[in-house]
Amino acid sequence: MTSDGAYEPKPEHKFSFGLWTLGNRGRDPFGDAVRPTLPPVEIVAMLAEVGAWGVNLHDNDLVPIDANGAERDRIVREFKKACSENGIVVPMATVSLFYDPVFRDGAFTANDPEVRAYALQKTMQAMDLGAELGANIFVLWGGREGVETDACRRADDAIKRLREAVNFLCEYNIDQGYGYKFALEAKPNEPRADIYMATTGHYLGFIPTLAHPEMVGVNPEWEAGKLFHIDLNDQMPGRYDQDLRFGSANLKSAFWLVKFLEDVGYQGPRHFDAHAYRTENHEGVKDFARGCMRTYLLLKQKAAQWNADREIQAILQEVSRPTPETPCIANYSSQGSRALLAHAFNRASIAKKRLPYERLDQLTVDILVGAR
Amino acid sequence: MTSDGAYEPKPEHKFSFGLWTLGNRGRDPFGDAVRPTLPPVEIVAMLAEVGAWGVNLHDNDLVPIDANGAERDRIVREFKKACSENGIVVPMATVSLFYDPVFRDGAFTANDPEVRAYALQKTMQAMDLGAELGANIFVLWGGREGVETDACRRADDAIKRLREAVNFLCEYNIDQGYGYKFALEAKPNEPRADIYMATTGHYLGFIPTLAHPEMVGVNPEWEAGKLFHIDLNDQMPGRYDQDLRFGSANLKSAFWLVKFLEDVGYQGPRHFDAHAYRTENHEGVKDFARGCMRTYLLLKQKAAQWNADREIQAILQEVSRPTPETPCIANYSSQGSRALLAHAFNRASIAKKRLPYERLDQLTVDILVGAR
Amino acid sequence: MTSDGAYEPKPEHKFSFGLWTLGNRGRDPFGDAVRPTLPPVEIVAMLAEVGAWGVNLHDNDLVPIDANGAERDRIVREFKKACSENGIVVPMATVSLFYDPVFRDGAFTANDPEVRAYALQKTMQAMDLGAELGANIFVLWGGREGVETDACRRADDAIKRLREAVNFLCEYNIDQGYGYKFALEAKPNEPRADIYMATTGHYLGFIPTLAHPEMVGVNPEWEAGKLFHIDLNDQMPGRYDQDLRFGSANLKSAFWLVKFLEDVGYQGPRHFDAHAYRTENHEGVKDFARGCMRTYLLLKQKAAQWNADREIQAILQEVSRPTPETPCIANYSSQGSRALLAHAFNRASIAKKRLPYERLDQLTVDILVGAR
Amino acid sequence: MTSDGAYEPKPEHKFSFGLWTLGNRGRDPFGDAVRPTLPPVEIVAMLAEVGAWGVNLHDNDLVPIDANGAERDRIVREFKKACSENGIVVPMATVSLFYDPVFRDGAFTANDPEVRAYALQKTMQAMDLGAELGANIFVLWGGREGVETDACRRADDAIKRLREAVNFLCEYNIDQGYGYKFALEAKPNEPRADIYMATTGHYLGFIPTLAHPEMVGVNPEWEAGKLFHIDLNDQMPGRYDQDLRFGSANLKSAFWLVKFLEDVGYQGPRHFDAHAYRTENHEGVKDFARGCMRTYLLLKQKAAQWNADREIQAILQEVSRPTPETPCIANYSSQGSRALLAHAFNRASIAKKRLPYERLDQLTVDILVGAR
Repeated sequence: MTSDGAYEPKPEHKFSFGLWTLGNRGRDPFGDAVRPTLPPVEIVAMLAEVGAWGVNLHDNDLVPIDANGAERDRIVREFKKACSENGIVVPMATVSLFYDPVFRDGAFTANDPEVRAYALQKTMQAMDLGAELGANIFVLWGGREGVETDACRRADDAIKRLREAVNFLCEYNIDQGYGYKFALEAKPNEPRADIYMATTGHYLGFIPTLAHPEMVGVNPEWEAGKLFHIDLNDQMPGRYDQDLRFGSANLKSAFWLVKFLEDVGYQGPRHFDAHAYRTENHEGVKDFARGCMRTYLLLKQKAAQWNADREIQAILQEVSRPTPETPCIANYSSQGSRALLAHAFNRASIAKKRLPYERLDQLTVDILVGAR
Repeated sequence: MTSDGAYEPKPEHKFSFGLWTLGNRGRDPFGDAVRPTLPPVEIVAMLAEVGAWGVNLHDNDLVPIDANGAERDRIVREFKKACSENGIVVPMATVSLFYDPVFRDGAFTANDPEVRAYALQKTMQAMDLGAELGANIFVLWGGREGVETDACRRADDAIKRLREAVNFLCEYNIDQGYGYKFALEAKPNEPRADIYMATTGHYLGFIPTLAHPEMVGVNPEWEAGKLFHIDLNDQMPGRYDQDLRFGSANLKSAFWLVKFLEDVGYQGPRHFDAHAYRTENHEGVKDFARGCMRTYLLLKQKAAQWNADREIQAILQEVSRPTPETPCIANYSSQGSRALLAHAFNRASIAKKRLPYERLDQLTVDILVGAR
Repeated sequence: MTSDGAYEPKPEHKFSFGLWTLGNRGRDPFGDAVRPTLPPVEIVAMLAEVGAWGVNLHDNDLVPIDANGAERDRIVREFKKACSENGIVVPMATVSLFYDPVFRDGAFTANDPEVRAYALQKTMQAMDLGAELGANIFVLWGGREGVETDACRRADDAIKRLREAVNFLCEYNIDQGYGYKFALEAKPNEPRADIYMATTGHYLGFIPTLAHPEMVGVNPEWEAGKLFHIDLNDQMPGRYDQDLRFGSANLKSAFWLVKFLEDVGYQGPRHFDAHAYRTENHEGVKDFARGCMRTYLLLKQKAAQWNADREIQAILQEVSRPTPETPCIANYSSQGSRALLAHAFNRASIAKKRLPYERLDQLTVDILVGAR
Repeated sequence: MTSDGAYEPKPEHKFSFGLWTLGNRGRDPFGDAVRPTLPPVEIVAMLAEVGAWGVNLHDNDLVPIDANGAERDRIVREFKKACSENGIVVPMATVSLFYDPVFRDGAFTANDPEVRAYALQKTMQAMDLGAELGANIFVLWGGREGVETDACRRADDAIKRLREAVNFLCEYNIDQGYGYKFALEAKPNEPRADIYMATTGHYLGFIPTLAHPEMVGVNPEWEAGKLFHIDLNDQMPGRYDQDLRFGSANLKSAFWLVKFLEDVGYQGPRHFDAHAYRTENHEGVKDFARGCMRTYLLLKQKAAQWNADREIQAILQEVSRPTPETPCIANYSSQGSRALLAHAFNRASIAKKRLPYERLDQLTVDILVGAR
């Protein structure tokens, strides 16, 4: 990358990566791992080298699923030391409820009651781990909460089980005084054939039915004051789950996303949930991580330019300007409603008002490519 | 169709069609209309002929957008007479906020304040119309509530406008004593490039932020007690909005849907939001309508057979059976939580429990094709 | 399954499975293997048990990539013995050019010339292996022939490399007298972000540019006399590569496919390239295999019923009937062309001819569900 | 737009638009036309105003389907005059075989023999028209050549009919001495539920089966020397047919496309098959047209910069470098084949060679956003 300082990552940018992202070994459904295992403490050092601020983790990214208590404690101690020495924080923790075969039919929604109990136990232990490392966001991704055939259970039963599990975990959070915010993460149709909570919208509908809705948000979401965490990556549509370098598939979508986060003053971590191409070695993994952060900063600068562009702002103002005679609809009243019903609108003339969105969008393209 | 009585539609099945479905003229983005206009009163007669129970409508399916008051009253009078003579009811009404050019930038979320006011006025008048015809469900489909470029407005502003509009309409509903339930209908990515409320999940998240959430539900939805209306049709995935004859693209998905509606005791209308192929004339439109209802009834019978199948039920029971020693997770307590943390799970043996879902799904296929 | 003999698999049905299908261990991008390894000789016995006719294989399904010559020979000897004892044939062989990290940037199209040479060598050895086992179809799937970024090579260069490789292998086929037909297999967008030959159509365009086009066909294809092999499975659209039990996602699509194969008198193997759900153990794998074959036979019977249905055949005949005055367009001549230009067509009356396809399709549904 | 001359369209860029693109009235499946009709002669003037070079047309974009001979001749005369006065050429012509209801079941593949004959006649007349206007490319888009249900005809029969039709038209081309190149245009799944020739690959496989394959190519295609025409626009994946302003949905894909056309020295027209947002009036249509051309020229300049970038070129050279001992595979010989089989490859060391594609792709991003 060029050495222009404006695009160098700094702690105030709150750029974080998961252990599973830099540590990704490039295995896929048709191919073996292409990179050797990176121990967590080495990933922490690598994050410091490329200029990141934080590291996130699933329980088993750090502690093997069958480690005993003494092993677990040693591993955690060494990891905390590495974080401290490298100036890396742990903003978020999560739990793997998808990798082990025990979860092949789901975790919180599995038919087998023993699996459901074990999934809760494992999550509680992962919450303990995250709290010990200083995390205050806990992400839940229900990767196995779905089916291959609707024959095996009714969807409404499954969602009841999910609700009970999240309620249980909120109580544990209170009981232990951990102060976590939970962020529920949706992902459509992989790895199960049909996933119950396929979109963030589904979770936004689910949260108000919980016992402690104020404690639970989503990853990610826009308007409802519920954006507790965000995963940044990229994806070519209609493909499997690619997790490409941020901005590498669609620069313009990435631009609108960065602009949104900066416009609303998002204060949380900018977490990259992505991984390097399978063609890369560990040097290439660093290129990948640097590229994620650099593209974010390039787009952040362009968002500021867009907001400051006079022609753009003039268009936006013009298309939203009210006319003096437009009936007020801000608050309902019987009288106002009668006035609205009585008002004669000139539909044809309204339909002719100019809305120069092609121009607006081309100005955006010009800014994006540096031609303005 | 064969004349087997079990699959003949009857009023208790509550099969309804929209005026726009039987009246669809087969226009598409690349082709002209292929069928002549059917006047609403003739559609009502056709519905009676094929054995349907109800008819639904957008305001402008019945009353042209520029009809004056006298014309409007005459049209409504004749339509009520036709419904009454043919024994057809009007369970649902809705409003077109998408066809006229005035809505080219949205209706409730448009940038132009005058468009937003006009959209409210038009909806109030459509509510008046529906109430006069006896409807108690009012559907809102935000077909134009979206953008071609994110440059033209911020998504969070748009959703605020949408919320204010629905709140306003709820007040009007109360004020007029109409007793409507509102059903919000999602549809992804058509006709705008990006639609704000692309899934039912998005609406389920939106509803709790309203002033009168109890008055507002979705079309369609499963578990949250919010299923106020349902549209039945079919679709080949990854295509434009096809609205094919119910069950004609994927019989098995249609089966699970019918089974769900019957299992939960859904009491509302079975509304077919579909239309005949462009190759059909009006005789073919009747074939289309008969086929929708017949396939529903065929699948309803198969759902009953599935529920009564001993092998299927035995499998379902077996896969969900608890073991005596599984810790109880039904309600949270500190003590129960400690017991759960202390419990030693045998992960390997749990992972080996048999889950014969291939067999279960093949039994479903056997029932579907009549081989069982 | 019910014991009705008509739907029991027999050798004349030519049902085959890949070693990788019954042997699939249920690993996915987010989860570990759920079933123990099945040795190839046990898979052969299992195939005999469920009534299959043939077994297909990649080189490394049978012989590990780093086996030496003596190991290879012993493995092949034992496998041939198992096939012979169980009455199972090997109709098709193929080569893995996707699993080993050496192919992470492609095989025949890789940038590294050494990878391209190695890929050829490995394929020649797999051809030797298949010939020894009696296969006469050799499938090539270019799973890694693609890119994550177009920056790394030009697509036209890649396709030139692919052409040279296939030409080379055809020469080897001639030189060794193996008598193989090559079947090129397309698969869109997985595992690479963009795959060069994403559809069968791409391969049909590619084949005529080869040195020996008569030796090369596709897997699968319909009209061009090039259907050398077929993979049967199922898939919910818009998902990752699911390889579900045949007919389990969309019965109607499966029906049209079976009908097509039977109508054209396809003589090749009916090969199931699918695998059991991750929830299954080895008993469930047998359920899966039996279900694939049973559904094929159920649909084959329904295809015969469809072809024999008088109402269906009458509709088909009626919609295709010529009128005596229609100009003949069978062969071009200047005179005929002038006559055609001079003919006055009555567009409006042609557009009114009835095409009762809704009825035709509903009759198909009735046959499929056993209601006719 | 800024007035920087480098990005102003000039005749040598060969930018063309269809009458149907600037003349698009913004009708869609859910909405009425939003812009008044633009007469063809005014579109020609508008094209001259924005700096385009050519105009393309369907027969009925210019001549109404039921115009008589005298009307047709007058319209053509006036149009030629407008083209000549405005310095606009007609590089390509095509025929509408999709709009009129007569084609509701297909044109060349329709079941009704009279429709097939009429489709040929109409195409011959459109070829006459195009030849009179100076076009030397004739595009065929089979928009209706498909089905809603496979019940209505066999796909192999349909493709036979299509082949006969194209053969017939090639003979007419020869007979009349028109010198056309035919370009076959694919488009997946719209407006029919399933279209026979859904991809360019399908057409590339179809062309070699024709009587005059040298006369027929595709629109568009890359490597086979068959790129006779190209349509430029943009599209958000997984949506209906959007035809957005070139480069407005995915700048990076547009960049690779422009780079490819310039790298291979494509000499044909750069034809924009797109249209303005429904929110635009005729001034906005000009913005749209200017934006298409400007973005093409911006990306063309960036492609030149990419090709001249030393770091990029060094990486490309390095990753493709052969080693001296790699066996030669350029041409097959029995001896070379034995040498290849005997060569010992070091798989592990090959798999470790660095392929810095993340870096390469990020350099591309840097160039695209103007940060390099």
